[in-house]
Amino acid sequence: MNQKRVTRLQQEMKTKALDGVILMPGPNQVYFSHMHTHVSERPILLFLPADGAPAAIIPVLEAMKARDAGIPEERIFAWTDVDWYEGAFASAAAALHLDGAHWGVEALYMRVLEYEALQKVAPKLRTSHAEPAIMALRAIKDADELAAVERAVGVAERAIERLIPQIQIGQTEKQVAGMLTGLMQEEGADTVAFSPIVSTGPNGASPHATPTDRPLADGDFLVIDWGAYVDGYPSDITRTFAVGHVDAEMARIYDVVRESNAQGKLAAKPGATGEDVDRAARKVIEDAGYGKYFIHRTGHGLGLEVHEMPSMVAGNREPLAVGNVFTVEPGIYLPGRGGVRIEDDVVITADGRRSLTSFTRELITVG
Amino acid sequence: MNQKRVTRLQQEMKTKALDGVILMPGPNQVYFSHMHTHVSERPILLFLPADGAPAAIIPVLEAMKARDAGIPEERIFAWTDVDWYEGAFASAAAALHLDGAHWGVEALYMRVLEYEALQKVAPKLRTSHAEPAIMALRAIKDADELAAVERAVGVAERAIERLIPQIQIGQTEKQVAGMLTGLMQEEGADTVAFSPIVSTGPNGASPHATPTDRPLADGDFLVIDWGAYVDGYPSDITRTFAVGHVDAEMARIYDVVRESNAQGKLAAKPGATGEDVDRAARKVIEDAGYGKYFIHRTGHGLGLEVHEMPSMVAGNREPLAVGNVFTVEPGIYLPGRGGVRIEDDVVITADGRRSLTSFTRELITVG
Repeated sequence: MNQKRVTRLQQEMKTKALDGVILMPGPNQVYFSHMHTHVSERPILLFLPADGAPAAIIPVLEAMKARDAGIPEERIFAWTDVDWYEGAFASAAAALHLDGAHWGVEALYMRVLEYEALQKVAPKLRTSHAEPAIMALRAIKDADELAAVERAVGVAERAIERLIPQIQIGQTEKQVAGMLTGLMQEEGADTVAFSPIVSTGPNGASPHATPTDRPLADGDFLVIDWGAYVDGYPSDITRTFAVGHVDAEMARIYDVVRESNAQGKLAAKPGATGEDVDRAARKVIEDAGYGKYFIHRTGHGLGLEVHEMPSMVAGNREPLAVGNVFTVEPGIYLPGRGGVRIEDDVVITADGRRSLTSFTRELITVG
Repeated sequence: MNQKRVTRLQQEMKTKALDGVILMPGPNQVYFSHMHTHVSERPILLFLPADGAPAAIIPVLEAMKARDAGIPEERIFAWTDVDWYEGAFASAAAALHLDGAHWGVEALYMRVLEYEALQKVAPKLRTSHAEPAIMALRAIKDADELAAVERAVGVAERAIERLIPQIQIGQTEKQVAGMLTGLMQEEGADTVAFSPIVSTGPNGASPHATPTDRPLADGDFLVIDWGAYVDGYPSDITRTFAVGHVDAEMARIYDVVRESNAQGKLAAKPGATGEDVDRAARKVIEDAGYGKYFIHRTGHGLGLEVHEMPSMVAGNREPLAVGNVFTVEPGIYLPGRGGVRIEDDVVITADGRRSLTSFTRELITVG
């Protein structure tokens, strides 16, 4: 268990009059317990009471994980494939006094399977949604989390350094994506943070393009959006490259996006909002006359999940706080011609922000 | 919509007195509708009534997918980020007469989010678990599905052919996994079927080892378990290689596993059971004196998901049927020394079975 995080959540429970929170396999369970389990047909539930020790319902084969997470032996309700799980639910409900209590659940993760099993053993259990409180806690990264993101950035940046001299005109988007994935794994990625986006020429006009068999051609812009998971935390970076020679307007667009990225980062500081960051980045692109071609928010939080809070978007008026980690990724997308995006990962610090990514934002020519 | 599959499911609904089935984003929704959506904080539900046209609750930004899937315009209950989804649930409940009806739901996929939203608009809706009926249908592959698995096998086998001459003593497990992932993407994988398992020497004693920084050393066995997704369907193959020279007992173990793999496949035919296949493969290993080192079932079904029905395991007495696709993957795992596993993908045919994998099972030396 991460007792510091659990204590913070318990404080939140008390302000919301919750008797506890139930967590399913996934990022929230990892965040509070460091217990890594998988969603399957076998239910695994972590119970964090507002007072008292944690408990778990878990298949006997995985009970070691609950022990390693520091859950006391008498609070581990393990069940076998022979007995199946109903008995474990009944024992947990009795020990935790679930019937008539009020617990927070993850509406986006708890399934009908677990919900029905709980209702059966505790028909008067009331539930409400625990996600908002949890996501607010997760948005503030501690030193260990930040160090993991920085390692993930390092892997991604070393991989792109090695990739650039290998890129040749005629290679397909899929081939470049494959090479980059392999290089990230060689550099120490536990896995990719997401399938890399490699889009060339007109394909780059779609921000979330899937790599195709289109070969790199002279005059293309090449958008690469990639990242690695290291120790549970991801990087998420975009750079845009020139393939051979690009025309004057496209080169100008590159400069606009680079300036937008810089201004977005400058606006990020404690007390500013996600809306402020979005506004600052968007203003540069609007002033240059390309406002209608910047078709997404400026950035998103980055943590156990590649997309989490805080969001750099109009309407987000929550003040940024020291420890927030998020992307700044403005782009211009010209239908039929191509796109440019430059994405950095930043952390809010006491005196402003620090970019975790340092790979050059100068226009590099490849091929 | 895949009308043939929907009609089969509707027949099942009638035998179970269900008024319909509700499907969430994921493999079942893809199977029946070819609609590709993602689980997120935005609920997407596909309704397949026992009689009448399909319907969907879906964010307006994705409504195009419902149209493309052939859902009639008046049955698409689209909702916006401004209005949010409650109105769409109410409209769908009214149009589909959900209140008081009996629908099947996916207990493993429907979340508290959707369940509560349905209960709110149809308090007398009864639900039961639809998975068993659906998984039984999915276990029989049609020609298109089989062709996709064969393409996925082709990608994986071409990638390993290219990998073998590149493997060198001193490379780490992670490096080999990275190279293999890149080669699969170059050969046309849409994505990996799972992060490749590359385990060397003593690490091979764990069937599901995660690649480490251990370098390949002379005398190691090298277990590679890999696969690709192509057009929605995966391959899942394992081969074990000798690094330099392996000792006599290990070489003998290789021969035992190869024979076990062969006997497991031979036992697979229409009317035989998963238990029969497991028994035939296990007997070879038991007879050689290594029974207690074969610590998992012999295989699993392979389809939209890498693990599905039918399972090659003691206790599975369901007869195999033409169109079942599954793995045969016996292994011997000696703690502290290493492991050997040989895994093929097979399909049940009218006259027995056909291996979809053809990469040699002779012991290849690498490094």
